[in-house]
Amino acid sequence: MSENVAIIGTGHSKFGTRKDVNVAELCWESIKPAFESAGVEPKDIDYFVVGTAGMWSSEAAVPALIAEYAGLEPKGSMRAEAACATGSAAIRVGYTTIKSELADLVLVLGVEKMQESPSSTVIELIGRFGSYFWEFENFGLTFPGYYAMYGTAYMIKYGATEEDFAKVAVKNHYYGAKNPYAQFQREITVETVLKSPYIAWPFKLYDCSPITDGSACVILASEEKVKELGVEEKVWILGQGTGTGTANLSKRKDFTSLPSVVHAAEIAYKIAGIDKDDPVKYLDGADVHDCFTAAEIIAYEDLNFCRRGEGMKLVREEQTYIGGRIPVNIDGGLKAKGHPIGATGVSQAIEAYKQLLQKAEPGRQADIVKGRWLAHNVGGTGHYAYVTVYGLEKR
Amino acid sequence: MSENVAIIGTGHSKFGTRKDVNVAELCWESIKPAFESAGVEPKDIDYFVVGTAGMWSSEAAVPALIAEYAGLEPKGSMRAEAACATGSAAIRVGYTTIKSELADLVLVLGVEKMQESPSSTVIELIGRFGSYFWEFENFGLTFPGYYAMYGTAYMIKYGATEEDFAKVAVKNHYYGAKNPYAQFQREITVETVLKSPYIAWPFKLYDCSPITDGSACVILASEEKVKELGVEEKVWILGQGTGTGTANLSKRKDFTSLPSVVHAAEIAYKIAGIDKDDPVKYLDGADVHDCFTAAEIIAYEDLNFCRRGEGMKLVREEQTYIGGRIPVNIDGGLKAKGHPIGATGVSQAIEAYKQLLQKAEPGRQADIVKGRWLAHNVGGTGHYAYVTVYGLEKR
Repeated sequence: MSENVAIIGTGHSKFGTRKDVNVAELCWESIKPAFESAGVEPKDIDYFVVGTAGMWSSEAAVPALIAEYAGLEPKGSMRAEAACATGSAAIRVGYTTIKSELADLVLVLGVEKMQESPSSTVIELIGRFGSYFWEFENFGLTFPGYYAMYGTAYMIKYGATEEDFAKVAVKNHYYGAKNPYAQFQREITVETVLKSPYIAWPFKLYDCSPITDGSACVILASEEKVKELGVEEKVWILGQGTGTGTANLSKRKDFTSLPSVVHAAEIAYKIAGIDKDDPVKYLDGADVHDCFTAAEIIAYEDLNFCRRGEGMKLVREEQTYIGGRIPVNIDGGLKAKGHPIGATGVSQAIEAYKQLLQKAEPGRQADIVKGRWLAHNVGGTGHYAYVTVYGLEKR
Repeated sequence: MSENVAIIGTGHSKFGTRKDVNVAELCWESIKPAFESAGVEPKDIDYFVVGTAGMWSSEAAVPALIAEYAGLEPKGSMRAEAACATGSAAIRVGYTTIKSELADLVLVLGVEKMQESPSSTVIELIGRFGSYFWEFENFGLTFPGYYAMYGTAYMIKYGATEEDFAKVAVKNHYYGAKNPYAQFQREITVETVLKSPYIAWPFKLYDCSPITDGSACVILASEEKVKELGVEEKVWILGQGTGTGTANLSKRKDFTSLPSVVHAAEIAYKIAGIDKDDPVKYLDGADVHDCFTAAEIIAYEDLNFCRRGEGMKLVREEQTYIGGRIPVNIDGGLKAKGHPIGATGVSQAIEAYKQLLQKAEPGRQADIVKGRWLAHNVGGTGHYAYVTVYGLEKR
């Protein structure tokens, strides 16, 4: 049986518009606290991996940049990328490197400095995470448009309303206001969302996650290293499932579900020992990929937190607030915490660590009873799916 | 003990100017023969990884593209990148995925379609694989210039000449002429090199590897899967070491060696059970990263194929031709075979597979006695180093 893998240290930069720092400095803002909380030094690291889409930044070799800046040279490294699921792909590289017994300590960094390019360039570049040739170049779609097709299909099939979608944003802003690392730290109302300008019907400005700069870092350790260091505060990676979707949305059969997520969740639940017919029974909460409000509702259903068509009911009944059926995105989610693409999956891992160890800020700590947290990270419009389960007890 | 991992199938596109195909078609040109030679189908694959730098191509989501084109959907995937060592980073993801027992069959694809952008754009984009902010933006260096500093330092320290460097190109063209997949299939002379125009002194046009389109694919399997399928023709991954260099060349102490390579080689030799003081005793041959002719000579020394300063003697005495001390780049190397960045490391793995199984084309088959082949793949100017040892017998 291969090695168990634990998160033993974490660091999180402030998410937002970070024109005050360059890429290396932004990375260091999360690397430094990760080392401090893990109680290890750069020389102890066996391998490191950087998750970054990075298309909008001039620096193409972030691993080399931090090798020099953070003292990790000459240790080995690579960059992992899976569009908006890039952070989770980086965690996978760290996870498999340790699990395969090639390393005992791996640093996983997610970073994005998206505001180095103008917004129009960023939106064009993100739009390429699908089939550039057919759908972007020929039809001119960008991501709000791609996901709006899913939102619209969901409205038609189940009778969801723009107000239902708005309530997702209200919840995520409610918790983002309590998260000091979040890009938007203020509450909003349903009216704020409904009155904001349309981006791609049915989505308005407040239905969309923002363009964000930020970094997040975790230090992963083998079970042997956890024992050797005598680490008390740790969270185990219990399992991860992954999936890939068709490049062209025209090849998708249904627009109310992402098959890559369903596939990824099935694998993750199996490896983590979770009953896929009732995962909520095993989970204290989850972070899901709310790049657009409707995506959060579809995630509830793809992850089987509820039956098909009932995601909007969870929202209407506020069942994904703390105290409800399952708290979701109580760090603010992509919507309010922000979405620095490469950092998002790593930030989700940090939220799992904080929640499970009951270290979340006042007003946003879930009840920890079952000892497991789920992270759902999607790249493109379901082009990539990563579902990871974290837990207090190793398998 | 974690799983052993073998290459059980390979596919290689024609390298060169490939304006006749789009990215998906170029990928398929290597994926199809890989499946055929492995005797498996897309549905059998558990996970796949694409190595591509891809900055010059419009398609940002190559894994999703081939998921659809090659029938791999909904299996999980990611993109791996480490500048010009990208192909080896992709192999690492496949290797660790199987070794960690998360998959039994992984497809690893390396691809680049560099000629989609004008050469000047490609050269600018490659130039960013270092420290963009200081060295590219402020000093205006691109890669021939970066490596020319190493070539010059080597000439000064050891008395190497432009003719010594030229002989590396002559050897690699000699073998490239015998490799049907190579970009340049014609022999050249020392005069050809010396008379070609200067790019960055001491390098002339024929000292530089070209801009190339191409793809290469391997299918990796666990030991259990090898047994289950009854695979006869296979080559094992015996070990891999990795290293990272400083982003800024101004932080390097010496310009006649790449410390990231020395670090990576030490780890690879240790894992593969090779005596680092005499690796040639264990190897039937090697592919090294001859992005520029001088880089091949420095590689001999960093890999300890000879003592410091003696790399140029190996060249003068033709010791890296078949029949010499150790045959190197007898597939043509980056210089003559071509260097489609993401495909190069995978192409090196395929060369190891072909040589060890004695399937190389007439006139370029090494004597296989020791049963091991080495691949040395460098990203940037030693910003990344990947050294992989392949063997006929598992460890």
